[in-house]
Amino acid sequence: MAEASTKAEYVVGVDLGGTKILAGVFDHSMECVGTAKLSTKSQRGVDRVVERIARSAQDAIDEADLTLKQIAGVGIGAPGAVDFESGTVIFAPNLEGWKDIPLKKGLEKILGVPVFVENDCNISALGVYVAELKSKPRTMVGIFVGTGIGGGLILDGELYSGFGHTAGEIGHMVLEISGPKCGCGNKGCFEALASRTAIFQQIKAGVKDGQKTLLTEMLGTDLADLRSGDLRKAIRRGDKFVDRIIEGAAEYIGIATANLVNILNPEVVVLGGGVIEALADEMMSVIVETAKDYAMPGALKGVEIIASKLGDNAGITGAAVLARRETK
Amino acid sequence: MAEASTKAEYVVGVDLGGTKILAGVFDHSMECVGTAKLSTKSQRGVDRVVERIARSAQDAIDEADLTLKQIAGVGIGAPGAVDFESGTVIFAPNLEGWKDIPLKKGLEKILGVPVFVENDCNISALGVYVAELKSKPRTMVGIFVGTGIGGGLILDGELYSGFGHTAGEIGHMVLEISGPKCGCGNKGCFEALASRTAIFQQIKAGVKDGQKTLLTEMLGTDLADLRSGDLRKAIRRGDKFVDRIIEGAAEYIGIATANLVNILNPEVVVLGGGVIEALADEMMSVIVETAKDYAMPGALKGVEIIASKLGDNAGITGAAVLARRETK
Repeated sequence: MAEASTKAEYVVGVDLGGTKILAGVFDHSMECVGTAKLSTKSQRGVDRVVERIARSAQDAIDEADLTLKQIAGVGIGAPGAVDFESGTVIFAPNLEGWKDIPLKKGLEKILGVPVFVENDCNISALGVYVAELKSKPRTMVGIFVGTGIGGGLILDGELYSGFGHTAGEIGHMVLEISGPKCGCGNKGCFEALASRTAIFQQIKAGVKDGQKTLLTEMLGTDLADLRSGDLRKAIRRGDKFVDRIIEGAAEYIGIATANLVNILNPEVVVLGGGVIEALADEMMSVIVETAKDYAMPGALKGVEIIASKLGDNAGITGAAVLARRETK
Repeated sequence: MAEASTKAEYVVGVDLGGTKILAGVFDHSMECVGTAKLSTKSQRGVDRVVERIARSAQDAIDEADLTLKQIAGVGIGAPGAVDFESGTVIFAPNLEGWKDIPLKKGLEKILGVPVFVENDCNISALGVYVAELKSKPRTMVGIFVGTGIGGGLILDGELYSGFGHTAGEIGHMVLEISGPKCGCGNKGCFEALASRTAIFQQIKAGVKDGQKTLLTEMLGTDLADLRSGDLRKAIRRGDKFVDRIIEGAAEYIGIATANLVNILNPEVVVLGGGVIEALADEMMSVIVETAKDYAMPGALKGVEIIASKLGDNAGITGAAVLARRETK
């Protein structure tokens, strides 16, 4: 109780994304007491990004009127395959040149505190589980729909990452073998059907084909700065074309949810990510209804399917939870 | 060590199927010391089937020159949704009238020993895991391809059955949204693409369309007594039509394997069930190659994909393992 003020009782969570880096400092009760945000600028090279991650952590610490001495550890969610033991980012498709990058080692050298690296969707699932669900359910599946689609699994109260630490790659679950081409090279992956990338492609193809939409009024015919929030605005103003595409994506998410429920029968399914954050009101009822249609009898009994309210904070929260657990 | 010979040191495992009931008695080192087999005859009604299950256990015990007093417990794998706690079969689509049947209670009344009921695919996965893999891997996915398709998950060394005990329903994972109708009412389920039922339907439809196949020479044009083994014989005698259909089914199984590997990243994937038992030589290389094509980079690193050698014994072995664990 009567701890010295320099005791390392805070942790930092960092969410490393393709375009931005978010950092947050969390106190002993896991309240966020300071944040910082930097653009990633991965085109400047790996070393510069590692420095920027360190700076984002330092900025957040400074924002909270703290010093590095008060930080027990830093957790990081990285967008790709991660080897947790060594803290290496094996591959991050959205970060230029990120292949076998010893992120833990590099950051520990700069910051002088223990660093822990996990996959970003695993981290977000952990954040939602601890901060939003208060670690109550024993099993949870997190489905994060953004530029891509990723997942995170909580089984028996613990983050589950599998034999080679690659579990949760639900975005590449094939739902439609003869479906559209995915970035991974296969066809009909969940991600190729329902991610923001897939949704935007469908919209742009429709506009090219002469479909009428309010989006072109809002943004011009090239739809240059299209964002998920624009889709919400268009739907709320009565745009049938956008509404149909979003309903279609929600159906795919519902089918993917049913597949995961049939396989894992979790207690809670949490939907998150930028697309869900922007369009939860438009998509959630379709997702839930479709999941009910496709789930086996009994598999959804008592199972909750909900949208996360953490939004962008799921990543930094989960990363901080990781740091807290690993430094306890 | 100097145990009395009447000590209850044996367990019985029963595999309850739609057409037959297998029972096996296992000693303290889990060697099978006696078996029995009866037809199920579910048309005679639920009570008669429960009596036949009891009789199969008693026959196996007698076969092993033992008495019921030497049996610590009986495990049963039932083909449907099971509530493990109460030992109730909630629903078994292949057994007439099996809805909310208190199997544990009914059998304990007849046999006077503790009875434990689990889903048959969970039980088979447990049998393969313990008897074939010696409980070495931490995570295993079992894929059982027979009349239908079911799965069983071993996570962190334990049978995983989920929140409501319905996990492992991999046969109703949608792989092709616009695919053929499944018995469950949806379209394009794994089971509707690659089960024995699906394979036989494709063969019968092809024969109706005038496709040439050795099967009609072997069995007549109605293909009345078609079995998985006939397909193997036809392929080995050069039947291109059957070969193509089996290759297609193997590709679907490979895609389903990749989906499960992407989601769960298990250490071992074991394929079993009657179709795999009969056609492992024809299907396994296609399954493995397709899984490699569809799995994410790294997700299959170090992961084994193998065919079970336990065959029909997976069920009784797993049921005995369950009985042993629950009576320890």
